[in-house]
Amino acid sequence: MSHDVSEPGWSPQGPVVELSDEESWKRLSSKNFGHLALSTRGRPDIFPVNYYSDGRTILFRSSKGAKLNELVENPHVAFEVDADTPDNVWSVVVHATAKVLKDDLVLSVAARETLPAWIPVEEFVYVSLEPNSIRGRLFERHLPIGRI
Amino acid sequence: MSHDVSEPGWSPQGPVVELSDEESWKRLSSKNFGHLALSTRGRPDIFPVNYYSDGRTILFRSSKGAKLNELVENPHVAFEVDADTPDNVWSVVVHATAKVLKDDLVLSVAARETLPAWIPVEEFVYVSLEPNSIRGRLFERHLPIGRI
Repeated sequence: MSHDVSEPGWSPQGPVVELSDEESWKRLSSKNFGHLALSTRGRPDIFPVNYYSDGRTILFRSSKGAKLNELVENPHVAFEVDADTPDNVWSVVVHATAKVLKDDLVLSVAARETLPAWIPVEEFVYVSLEPNSIRGRLFERHLPIGRI
Repeated sequence: MSHDVSEPGWSPQGPVVELSDEESWKRLSSKNFGHLALSTRGRPDIFPVNYYSDGRTILFRSSKGAKLNELVENPHVAFEVDADTPDNVWSVVVHATAKVLKDDLVLSVAARETLPAWIPVEEFVYVSLEPNSIRGRLFERHLPIGRI
């Protein structure tokens, strides 16, 4: 799960820099909106998700529905967070195993307060993603000096 | 593949409105950045993608790499586009079959000009998503008048 920040390579969009695991977690933890990819019997699905990360795991709420059913059937997931800045676009992908929490007393105050307010009529559970691997990449908008 | 705009239901984040297929395609076609979910042998993966849509199919470029290999192994994909506005968040998900185009002469000028500039050293192909279903949802930030 470790590699250093590398020299820029090339992507379809231009130069691409691989981010270290530490830098990838730092960027992922700085955001609270991402995309969750699931797969049931070979059919992928995708959901936008509000999340909280302490830099080691990822936490979100799920109501009873398609997302939760698919997670229980196949807990292998991919989770992606990205951001657009004037100079570059970065993207961090975590491959993880999803776990429905039986007891939300373990949650920190930070986790409870960061996740968006819930409508009380809905039943929900907390889902934790236990990471297996992380990969962060930064796509530069401009060619670095000396490359052309 | 058709349902009308419904009365708001409830989601974990608040009231949710189902969008018609026409409205979903209109919103999807108004953007050019989305997320593609793939699945290989039960393991989902996710990629941020610049795309072009003419309101019936979705088109993007892919270089030779993980994304393309996974697409060829299992062409079933999910593609999601969303946007954040002051009043609401909307999200459109298309379940589709990916097809690598053998001949890019079929592409319209609009498609060529909308997709971001490519670095000429990279080899790439065009991938088209043939939709099987579309679902659009709009999450309201505020409770509608009369609901509380």
